[in-house]
Amino acid sequence: MMAGMEAKTGGGRRYTRMSRREREAEFSRILAFSDGVFAIAITLLVLQLEVPEDKVDLGHQLAQELPDLFAFALSFAVLGRVWWVFHHRLFTGLAYFDSPLVGLNFGYLAMVTLVPFTSELLGDYGDRPVVVIAYAVNLAALSIIGGVMVEYAFSHGLMREDAVKNSRLYRGWATWVIPAVFLLSIPVALVSPLAATLVWLLTLGVAPRVVRSWSGRDEGD
Amino acid sequence: MMAGMEAKTGGGRRYTRMSRREREAEFSRILAFSDGVFAIAITLLVLQLEVPEDKVDLGHQLAQELPDLFAFALSFAVLGRVWWVFHHRLFTGLAYFDSPLVGLNFGYLAMVTLVPFTSELLGDYGDRPVVVIAYAVNLAALSIIGGVMVEYAFSHGLMREDAVKNSRLYRGWATWVIPAVFLLSIPVALVSPLAATLVWLLTLGVAPRVVRSWSGRDEGD
Amino acid sequence: MMAGMEAKTGGGRRYTRMSRREREAEFSRILAFSDGVFAIAITLLVLQLEVPEDKVDLGHQLAQELPDLFAFALSFAVLGRVWWVFHHRLFTGLAYFDSPLVGLNFGYLAMVTLVPFTSELLGDYGDRPVVVIAYAVNLAALSIIGGVMVEYAFSHGLMREDAVKNSRLYRGWATWVIPAVFLLSIPVALVSPLAATLVWLLTLGVAPRVVRSWSGRDEGD
Amino acid sequence: MMAGMEAKTGGGRRYTRMSRREREAEFSRILAFSDGVFAIAITLLVLQLEVPEDKVDLGHQLAQELPDLFAFALSFAVLGRVWWVFHHRLFTGLAYFDSPLVGLNFGYLAMVTLVPFTSELLGDYGDRPVVVIAYAVNLAALSIIGGVMVEYAFSHGLMREDAVKNSRLYRGWATWVIPAVFLLSIPVALVSPLAATLVWLLTLGVAPRVVRSWSGRDEGD
Repeated sequence: MMAGMEAKTGGGRRYTRMSRREREAEFSRILAFSDGVFAIAITLLVLQLEVPEDKVDLGHQLAQELPDLFAFALSFAVLGRVWWVFHHRLFTGLAYFDSPLVGLNFGYLAMVTLVPFTSELLGDYGDRPVVVIAYAVNLAALSIIGGVMVEYAFSHGLMREDAVKNSRLYRGWATWVIPAVFLLSIPVALVSPLAATLVWLLTLGVAPRVVRSWSGRDEGD
Repeated sequence: MMAGMEAKTGGGRRYTRMSRREREAEFSRILAFSDGVFAIAITLLVLQLEVPEDKVDLGHQLAQELPDLFAFALSFAVLGRVWWVFHHRLFTGLAYFDSPLVGLNFGYLAMVTLVPFTSELLGDYGDRPVVVIAYAVNLAALSIIGGVMVEYAFSHGLMREDAVKNSRLYRGWATWVIPAVFLLSIPVALVSPLAATLVWLLTLGVAPRVVRSWSGRDEGD
Repeated sequence: MMAGMEAKTGGGRRYTRMSRREREAEFSRILAFSDGVFAIAITLLVLQLEVPEDKVDLGHQLAQELPDLFAFALSFAVLGRVWWVFHHRLFTGLAYFDSPLVGLNFGYLAMVTLVPFTSELLGDYGDRPVVVIAYAVNLAALSIIGGVMVEYAFSHGLMREDAVKNSRLYRGWATWVIPAVFLLSIPVALVSPLAATLVWLLTLGVAPRVVRSWSGRDEGD
Repeated sequence: MMAGMEAKTGGGRRYTRMSRREREAEFSRILAFSDGVFAIAITLLVLQLEVPEDKVDLGHQLAQELPDLFAFALSFAVLGRVWWVFHHRLFTGLAYFDSPLVGLNFGYLAMVTLVPFTSELLGDYGDRPVVVIAYAVNLAALSIIGGVMVEYAFSHGLMREDAVKNSRLYRGWATWVIPAVFLLSIPVALVSPLAATLVWLLTLGVAPRVVRSWSGRDEGD
């Protein structure tokens, strides 16, 4: 039972941290489960594209699916290129895991799972403030839980030594840009849902830079 | 064929137990399949959130999805934080597996697979006794099969030595609290579906303690 | 490129067989893909259970879902306990794989993927011969492709040595009982769909024996 | 952080390439995620087969599902036998990966994810030019991104040595036949949607040859 665990009761740590190396089977199940949820959620995004029920004016009906296609592309890019890569990178840097981290991971995955719903809302009613806000809240919550996971992992000594040395690659200001963008878009949406959507595109503009920093690219040298 | 198997025919054992270590490929396929079912079922929970079909009174219609969001959160938490962690932990502790255990696992997964249906029922008609009972029966059956799997694994010598030594972490009274709560909620639902739902929240109250005990946290020392 | 391959051009073999051991990464992707399809198809079975659209006479409407629940349970058992275990066992016994085997595997998985559709048909219109025949054809095709895969693997030298020695565990008459049952049920369905369904339950009666033989249980000694 | 990376800043390379061997955990997560998306998309194809809503004239209604069954079979074959095998083969040949390759892979997977939608369109309205074109564009984009991935991997030194030696197995003209067929079918569809569909069947005719070349079969010697 105790193999692969360290109970640092002296340090006031409440939760037993488990070594990734010594409990590889458990750790890789967490990864497999997380990747499964990501893969399914990203594939369910297609369900928001609806096949018209009658063929009268089919071209026109399909043209009305274009906002859904935009929502599909936006959500696919945000989930895949930003948040899957983020998750991937954080978990690659872990040397240990513990129960609160697994709990945070479930919260993170719950927000991922909600995206097909808020994305379909956005595709169908993207001109309505309430819908734009629902999407923004979903994505902001996802990114905030992600940021908290990173901070938790660093402050509880769960990261690998090399990750700690390069911590600016994980904990830079960039991590907090995305939730900030989504939170800022909420008051904007009350005035103009379209403007809020444009604000999000800023996210995609900044995302490659964030992802690059997460990918360990040397920037200064 | 016989590699990795032990036929203890002398002990009256009916089924050949197979060593996890020697048949790693098979064992990990069972895990991958189980994690796949969990990940899909938990992600399908989102399908219960329905996008309104017309935009008149959209805010009002979305507000009516709140019970569905509650059912989504409850089911996500129960499946992920309680029953996936439980499954994860039991299978981590296994040294051997056999055919009846695989059969029990299929029963367990069948109950997991039903949750998106009973959860959607609950979100749509949570004030109706028959619906609350359907959800309670689903979750009680899931947790009872889980408890039976643990008992089977211990009584048929399938657990690792260290798990046997720490058997109280697996077989404590806590394992049986959750099915008891769900079974108790059935008569309550006949009188008040709302009260039955509140009884379930007790489960979530007790769940962290159960999960913690499953996570091998030292409690006394 | 050539590592892990043997081109026995002298023997008239058309396809290059690849060693599982030397191309472990490729082989395990085939397994992961197959397990993914199984896990998703088995979980999609739940979509045939429909949440009633209005709450008038809710109990009565839920009672009408009982045939769907029967179809769910039957399909879950047949896919999981019979055909996943069969697939699992065959692939465990493989030492080599080649392109036609991968092709057969896709045919097998296509039949698995169709089950949620034919199963929903069966749950909704189980008293109609055409529906019962559709289900029977689906399951017969699945089991025939399964049997062909086994024969192909043995006759093309793809199995491990120990599997060849115990070939009766893979190639026994039992493998052909299940397609025979489903094929026989087709003319029966023309007379009585109910009787055809009862014939299938024979399959479930015989399935444990089949599965047991696949699970390498020693029977005579 | 830097383990498993090579920053060839001298060579003007913008992106750090990472060694598959040294970062096996990350690389296999990319594979697992990709296989998950493939498995889910291919299984969601079944959702285009719709269970008739009333039993009057059931046989006739089921007969009307035949074009859907054709679209299901076509899409299953194209996704599984052609594009999954292609992906499988490319990634088996990789020795390194980098951020743009991961990005291309997401684009590839997005096209895979769209297939259940365009395939359902095709099954329901296969006689309409706009629908046939949508399917052709989807499949052409999928195959073009696939071809670009291969070229990128070879020109940026990401392939294994043995793959480079046998590069004709990866980069032959055959890779570009399939996008060409789908692009050519677009003007054809404007005249006759049926003829365009027949052109696709050419793809399936040529696909086994392509797949065979990808499978490393020796052809000349």
